[in-house]
Amino acid sequence: MGDKKIITAPLQGFMELLPNEQIAFDRIKNTIEEIYVRYGFLKIDTPIIERSEVLLAKAGGETEKQIYRFNKGDNDLSLRFDLTVPLARYVAEYNKVLEFPFRRYAIGKVFRGERPQRGRFREFYQADIDIINKDNLNILNDVEIISIIYDIFKTLDFTKFTIRINNRKILKGFLEYLGLEKKIKDILILIDKIDKIGNKEFTYELEKICNDREKIDKILEIINIKGNNEQKISSLRKMNIDNNEFIEGINEIEKILEYSKAFNIDEEYISFDLSIVRGLDYYTGTIYETIFDDYTNIGSVCSGGRYDNLTSLYTKESFPGVGVSIGLTRLFDQLKENGLLDKKKIVKDVRVLIVNMRGDFKYALNIAKKLREENINTEVYFEDGKLGKKLEYANKRNIPFVIIIGEDEIKNGLITLRDMNNKKQNTVDIKEAIEIIHS
Amino acid sequence: MGDKKIITAPLQGFMELLPNEQIAFDRIKNTIEEIYVRYGFLKIDTPIIERSEVLLAKAGGETEKQIYRFNKGDNDLSLRFDLTVPLARYVAEYNKVLEFPFRRYAIGKVFRGERPQRGRFREFYQADIDIINKDNLNILNDVEIISIIYDIFKTLDFTKFTIRINNRKILKGFLEYLGLEKKIKDILILIDKIDKIGNKEFTYELEKICNDREKIDKILEIINIKGNNEQKISSLRKMNIDNNEFIEGINEIEKILEYSKAFNIDEEYISFDLSIVRGLDYYTGTIYETIFDDYTNIGSVCSGGRYDNLTSLYTKESFPGVGVSIGLTRLFDQLKENGLLDKKKIVKDVRVLIVNMRGDFKYALNIAKKLREENINTEVYFEDGKLGKKLEYANKRNIPFVIIIGEDEIKNGLITLRDMNNKKQNTVDIKEAIEIIHS
Repeated sequence: MGDKKIITAPLQGFMELLPNEQIAFDRIKNTIEEIYVRYGFLKIDTPIIERSEVLLAKAGGETEKQIYRFNKGDNDLSLRFDLTVPLARYVAEYNKVLEFPFRRYAIGKVFRGERPQRGRFREFYQADIDIINKDNLNILNDVEIISIIYDIFKTLDFTKFTIRINNRKILKGFLEYLGLEKKIKDILILIDKIDKIGNKEFTYELEKICNDREKIDKILEIINIKGNNEQKISSLRKMNIDNNEFIEGINEIEKILEYSKAFNIDEEYISFDLSIVRGLDYYTGTIYETIFDDYTNIGSVCSGGRYDNLTSLYTKESFPGVGVSIGLTRLFDQLKENGLLDKKKIVKDVRVLIVNMRGDFKYALNIAKKLREENINTEVYFEDGKLGKKLEYANKRNIPFVIIIGEDEIKNGLITLRDMNNKKQNTVDIKEAIEIIHS
Repeated sequence: MGDKKIITAPLQGFMELLPNEQIAFDRIKNTIEEIYVRYGFLKIDTPIIERSEVLLAKAGGETEKQIYRFNKGDNDLSLRFDLTVPLARYVAEYNKVLEFPFRRYAIGKVFRGERPQRGRFREFYQADIDIINKDNLNILNDVEIISIIYDIFKTLDFTKFTIRINNRKILKGFLEYLGLEKKIKDILILIDKIDKIGNKEFTYELEKICNDREKIDKILEIINIKGNNEQKISSLRKMNIDNNEFIEGINEIEKILEYSKAFNIDEEYISFDLSIVRGLDYYTGTIYETIFDDYTNIGSVCSGGRYDNLTSLYTKESFPGVGVSIGLTRLFDQLKENGLLDKKKIVKDVRVLIVNMRGDFKYALNIAKKLREENINTEVYFEDGKLGKKLEYANKRNIPFVIIIGEDEIKNGLITLRDMNNKKQNTVDIKEAIEIIHS
């Protein structure tokens, strides 16, 4: 203790919100969760602390550097850095008792000790959804994932967005066809960067990997195919690439686009984009990214894809899956940065503040009870003070209605209801008040 | 990696639930949160990782031993072990911009590296609620806390419970009156143990602290006061103890009991109990414990109290508060252990499973969309398989309705709705189906 002043600010890279910001954050979080549940997904809540050997079984250099790892007693422990590895462990551990297809969502904090910088967080929320099955998983699940992303961002209604999709099989089959099967990983990493480095730099780097002008031109051709979704598919088919995986990838994209209509998704919101690759190498089919059309600087706000085997590190059985993850903390931060958190959309947390001006609180408490029974979030102001101070409190807290109770109200069994927006107040009975508050 | 098999079970002391258990857990968690919000409380979500100096500023030996502490870069970090210390830091940091009274709730994981044993968790949820004000805080807030506890356990409806209350001022004033002001802490610690050790052992230990027969008898007298709440208050008053704090404590308890009626709390659920002390020494007034009458072995499931100054370690200003904490993970574990998780009360997460027997999924997807628009959680079974297998899946998942779609249904624009409880099925239109599912 001593006299040294303790720093009370949160650590750098750790988001901490004021009450009104928290309400806006939770509106997003709750919307995501509601839609996950609406599609029949089950919540799973795995521990934040895991065995280091579990988390680091597959992780590469960056993850090992960033992970929060420590010993406690004899245990080598780490904080989870995503929700996918814990899901894999969970499915491996409980697959005998789980029902498949296993549709799970998880919303929780994950930890990465990244170099602190604007928009990067060391502790942040992820909101994940995955569908896992044994041995096979119907491609319609891949469409459902799009439908869920679509519903979420339509409901949140921040700005026009596009769900970009691709299929790993197309580029993989294509590169195999070109005889570049050993360079697939390097080339995909390069394609992933094309938005940042541009076509010229891309070509320059590509030449280092593959010193064949004709093949380079072919790669540039496929990456730069233009047109709407159908036109792109048609252009790909016209390339006459004799490779099964290539054709399978196109067929899957085509089916996804066809079924998107059955899911009632507006076509304008889906873009088949051959330049989307995703960094993680475990994706094997469909991949997703979601961008805000007018704020591409934010990057993808919801990404994921299809993987052949979730649990390969832990079991011999095969569990294919498809899923996406929303980086909630970063999304919120970026929405704020870009002025997209419209205040009007903030759900009012408290609807009514009751202030008692004369007499004891018993009448006021009875009113509070009746309002709460009507699912109206109600706060009673118990502290001393003038009416003005109490109204000011309601104002700052964005509480839309104040109920004022004095001797007259108690005597007549009525209440005075003040609308904080237009500052008008009327003396009414509780039934009327409930109607007005609900309306 | 290598061939060594990785352990996929969660670590000892870390709760991990299967989907149906998770639903039961979330029902409790959501009920608590709903009631907190209904009373006008705001959610605050502080980081899990804090500076060690913040968490350990006041902590004693046990906490220091149990805390998860580690270095990352130059930072000496720890995982939070409760939600109260972070609240104190939060109020100290933001008190200039917060509105007071500040009514906050927090539900989140905390970490304590306790010796693993049955019913003890190293990672567990706490659900806290606190009301903080500047300088003064009305005693009615103490009653509101009781009302919230009452509403929560009445709504959860597990078993008859009792909220035990006491006031620190009574015993403190009493011991001061006896001239034992320097022994207060030791005697309170002893009183806290009286349920475990019994009256005889208690007296024996008390003699070690205070070698005055008359005073010991007085202490035994006050601890063993019997009767209902009013009788206890009356007995205390009759002791004629000339000490202001003693009298203030009794007055506060009396006011709390009086106002409990205004909050519409059934008297039977509140017991004024002089033997309740609570371990933590920062409580200065009201203290609470909540027990299940027929399962006292579980111990207190909701505890807390009033404290004079939340932020004394971080600021010079005075922030009195009152609050309680529910140890959710332990509560859930004990409810399960004692067979109190009634399956009937488990909210069905998914209401409808749609299975498609013939034709494509487009008709099925349209039905799913309509159900979801009616807030009906709906899952579509996309995988291949016979009807029996799909019904079995619905059965195991506790899904109450299955919609079956075949060629006839598509042709006639109808659906076949199967009630999984009575195994009856009818072919109806979507409107009828929605009515049946909602009813």
